[in-house]
Order: sequence, then structure tokens, then C-alpha cells
Amino acid sequence: MQSINKMPCRQRQGFFKKNECRMKEIIKAVKEAGAIAIFPHVMADGDAIGSALALRNFLVVQGKQAYVIFEEECSYKYRFLFQETTQCCIYPNIPDVQYDLHISLDSGDMKMLGSRIDLFKSAPSTVNMDHHKTNNKYADLNYISLSSAATGEIIYDFISLYDPIYKPDAFVATCLYVAITTDTGGFRYSNTTKRTHEIAGILTECDIDIENINKQVFDLMPKPQLELLKLALPKASFLHDDKIGVIRISREDYDKAGAKEEHSDGFVDYVRNVEGVEVAISFKETADGKVKVSFRSSGVVDVSETAHHFGGGGHENAAGCTINGDLKDAERQVIEYLIGRMEK
Amino acid sequence: MQSINKMPCRQRQGFFKKNECRMKEIIKAVKEAGAIAIFPHVMADGDAIGSALALRNFLVVQGKQAYVIFEEECSYKYRFLFQETTQCCIYPNIPDVQYDLHISLDSGDMKMLGSRIDLFKSAPSTVNMDHHKTNNKYADLNYISLSSAATGEIIYDFISLYDPIYKPDAFVATCLYVAITTDTGGFRYSNTTKRTHEIAGILTECDIDIENINKQVFDLMPKPQLELLKLALPKASFLHDDKIGVIRISREDYDKAGAKEEHSDGFVDYVRNVEGVEVAISFKETADGKVKVSFRSSGVVDVSETAHHFGGGGHENAAGCTINGDLKDAERQVIEYLIGRMEK
Repeated sequence: MQSINKMPCRQRQGFFKKNECRMKEIIKAVKEAGAIAIFPHVMADGDAIGSALALRNFLVVQGKQAYVIFEEECSYKYRFLFQETTQCCIYPNIPDVQYDLHISLDSGDMKMLGSRIDLFKSAPSTVNMDHHKTNNKYADLNYISLSSAATGEIIYDFISLYDPIYKPDAFVATCLYVAITTDTGGFRYSNTTKRTHEIAGILTECDIDIENINKQVFDLMPKPQLELLKLALPKASFLHDDKIGVIRISREDYDKAGAKEEHSDGFVDYVRNVEGVEVAISFKETADGKVKVSFRSSGVVDVSETAHHFGGGGHENAAGCTINGDLKDAERQVIEYLIGRMEK
Repeated sequence: MQSINKMPCRQRQGFFKKNECRMKEIIKAVKEAGAIAIFPHVMADGDAIGSALALRNFLVVQGKQAYVIFEEECSYKYRFLFQETTQCCIYPNIPDVQYDLHISLDSGDMKMLGSRIDLFKSAPSTVNMDHHKTNNKYADLNYISLSSAATGEIIYDFISLYDPIYKPDAFVATCLYVAITTDTGGFRYSNTTKRTHEIAGILTECDIDIENINKQVFDLMPKPQLELLKLALPKASFLHDDKIGVIRISREDYDKAGAKEEHSDGFVDYVRNVEGVEVAISFKETADGKVKVSFRSSGVVDVSETAHHFGGGGHENAAGCTINGDLKDAERQVIEYLIGRMEK
């Protein structure tokens, strides 16, 4: 692994704001701790899971007792990471250990720890490592690196500084790679930096199987997901001069396909990717009889405004809301409002 | 740009085989030439197109008269690269220039220059730069780097060595990035190296729009392509304990969707990506009444054997063949044979 001296300066030079600490202080706290618990956020994504598992396995090599405490079971995409690691548990089924240190990863707010907030706060010392600019520095030690594309980059830096001669084994490297590749959309989002590629390049030399990792996290579909796509895709349609693409998933579709709600994640991309589409929308009937609406914009239209109008939120190019009512009714309302905005 | 001294040694140390030259010799030949034509292979892919356009624009900055001579119009995926460049032409509509040097890129055999073979050979001097191990060194100067994931990496090295203080402008960097990202499947194939990521990282700092580039080359679908998918996907099916996934595209589907054959490229991936699928097959009715069969394997089954049986060829995990007959008949024959092999 690279030594800290070869790392870019952003992470180690003195521009830390109030309530932020240097990586060195976190390393000191970790070195002094015997038992450590790591907290990924609720609905852990690839960055939270990969960062947590990498950190745990590194700490075990350093002679620590280290555990990852999840809020719930992880998405099927990341199951392949759980074959080689142990000591991961789902709250409240956790080992009866007196922890010296709790580390929260990839969470901008303590609320993102869900039901584990009190547990997190209960340790003698708490650490918060994250890369979101909204992070509100809720722990005793807060290390927020906005220049990092993923919390996985921060963990890579932490490991490099903690033990400069340590070389990640294939499992730790795989976890760090998962963290980085998922949070950058496979190095495709604009948050990808030279440093992101540098770290990924180093990890590719740690005996990892990048074809398989990427297949698992990006490509692999459970069969019910494909069955759901087979039902939903033929109903996709385009309106307003093909500038709006719409995809709809009804409860009946989920039931027929034997699919769960998570299986329709990303379906909006099928219409978003069509040439000329400025706004892509998915309408999904939820189990409790509402309609979950997701918007994606190519950049021409600010979709957060429409989401906000219907009580939701988000960013200019990715937003969402939930509407009471049936699929057709929700669609009619949203499309009518959106076209009104687009014609202005 | 990095200087040659910082480059890995593989490309510049002395292990060149018979008929291979050092990069320095190619640089000398290019420096001595006034008018240069660059030849990407037939059915140019992202690597051939990106490498050729990057090299051309670099050479123009170096004061050369440089042209790219294509065999045919490029795929829609790469059209966005043709807004900023000129002097690209499609044979035989080429400028009447006395070329001093012809450079073939990404072509393992002169046959891959299609109808331009005689033109290529007609220059006083010819160069062949490639990364395929099957390259048969058909030019006066041959530079084959098997350690390069893409010819784009070779062009990057060429540019770095030719002019160590040159920093790629956004267009040249975009072209090199396209070459590298497409030939590594977005840094996902096993040919991706530390060096691949290093170069990509440097290119991200050359003012390129990686979100847009990746959207163009990987995600964007012309509407007829989505319409074709809407027709083909519902007919996808799974057999032999869901170990075989099949997708079929009939002439009627192409016609209804207003789609071309290239629009069904990659459809086999929809069934290949389904969990548990060991062999994915697409059957496509061609305009001349045959059936084009593509096989993908997860690694358990050697599909080249089946492709070979039907007069085709390929690799263990990706192979293909063309069968005379109708869609149903071709499918019946292939599936019957394949299941026989899988049961052995």
C-alpha cells in the first residue's frame, strides 16, 4: 500500500474546520481501543458495506476485537462479500461485548443509524468518518473528506496511515473496491477523481477478481427482477415529443414476477437512457397502496421542483416523492404538472 | 502528462521480439513524416476510433497533416466524438494527398483494414500499433504491447514519449478515455491494470466530462433500440433448470421497432446476467434469412465447442455462429446439442 507521504495533501493538510479532526487522532483512538464496533448506515449501500467490512478485517489483523453492526440484512448484491467474513451482526442480535469505540461510516447524520442511535452513543468514544458535505459532525471525533468520492477512499487512507507496510489481502481489497466502484457508478460519476483511479489501480494488484465483483454489484439480476422487467418494460412509453419517458410497475407486476420492491430499483434508467429523453419517471405501486415516484433528469429540467410540489425532495437531476392514490391517478397529476413546468 | 521516465518499464525495456520495434523508432518515423493517414480497423470500436482521433488531433498540434481514414460510418455510440474533429473520411472518399506514413491501429491482421489494404500498403512507410496477441506484424514498423488493455493506452504512451510536456486538451483526453473505457468494459474486464487506472485518472484531470462520455458509450439507446427490447425481452425464457437463458429477435421485431441489427447488440446480456444462468444465447434473424447465434458463458460451460459444431467460433465464454434456417429450427438444433454437451 502507498505510504501516507505519497498521498495527495488534501486529506492531511491543515484546513480542518471546527469539530473536525485529523486522521491521526482517529488512529490514536483506534490504537488505544480493544473492542470496536462499526456502524454502516441504514439500508447500507456498497460504500457503507464495503468500507465497514474492509475496516473490520483490517482491525482484526491489527489484533483488535472488531464487529460490524448492521441495521438490517444487506441487499442481495452484496451477499458475495459475506462468505469470507464473520462477526457481522444485525441489531439487536449483537455479541455481548463492552466496546471501547464506536465508528459510524458514510452517515451524514446520526439519524442514519436508525434503531442503533442509542447503542452508538453508548460507547466511551465515538468516531464519524464520512464524505458527505451535509455531515453534521455528531461524534466525538469527526473526519469528513469532501474530496473523497467514497467513504471507501477514506478507509483506504486510514489503513495506509495506520500501517504503511500493510498490503490489503484479497478480501479487504475487494471490499474497498466495492465501496469505491459503487459510489462512483463504476468510475462513471463526476465525483470520480484521479485519486479514485489511483486507489482502484492499486487494489487491482491485490489479487481481486474485478470481473466478478463488477458482475455481482452491477449486472447480476435475480430471476424475479428479470421477470418484473419483462412485465414493466413493454408498458414503458414516451410523451411530450418523446422528451418524457415513463415506466410503471403495478402491485400485480410485482406479484406475478414474485419480485420485491428493491427489484425495480434502477428501472427508471431504461427510459432515462433513451436518446432525447429529458425527464424519466418511474411510478411504482407500493405495498401500502401509495405510488412511489422517481424522477431523473438529463440536466435540462430541474425535477426536484416537481418532486417538491408533490411533497418529496431531491436534487435537480434525481428526485422523488410518494403520492396517495392509484397508479393512473398519480401519473396523470405528475405528468400534467411536469408538462406545465416544461412549457414555461 | 507523465514523462516517459515515470512510465512502467514494460513498454520500453528491451524484450522486443523479431519484427517488433521500440516506440522510439515509430516516433522517429512520425517526426520525419509530413502527411500521415491513420487506419482504424473495419467496424471500428471505441478503442479504434478513440485511438485514431486522439492520435490525429495530437499530430495536428505537432504540425502534421493528419487524417483518419475509416472503412465505414461509425456506430451511433461514437458520433459525439465527431463534432469537434474534422479530416475524418470514409474510404474511398479521401483527400488527394501524398502520404508519407500510414498507421494502422488496433488491428491484429492487415485483413482488418477491409477494402483499404492496398491503400495502406501504398505508403512509403507503414506502422502497426496494437495490443492483440494474435498480431502478425504486417507493417514496416510493428509495436505490439500485450500488457496494454487498449490501443488507447499505447497512444497515450506514444504521446507522452513524443512530447513529454504536452497536456492533452479535452478532446484528445476524451478520445483516449473512450478508447480505454470501452476496451475494458468500463474498467470491469480482467484486462484492466493498475496502469489502465493511472492513465484514466490522469485523463480525468484534463477537463473531460466523464458522466457524459460514459453515458454516450455505455447507456444511451436510440429509441428504436428500446422499442426492440420491449418486443424481445418478454419472449426471453429459461430452460434446463434455468441454467440456459434464451432471447430471440425476429425480423418482424426489427421491422416493428424500426431498428437495425446493431440495435440488438448486447441483448444477450439481459439473460446472461440472471442469477444461475450458465449459458446465455441470443438468436437473431438476419436480413438474408439466416439466424445469427451468440453464446455467452458464465465459465462453467465452454460455448466455443457448440459454436464450432455449427460452423462458428469464438472463445470459451463468448462465441457465435450463423445457421441457415428459421428461428425456431435454429433454436431447436442449438439447444438440443448444447443440452447434450451440458449433460455429459
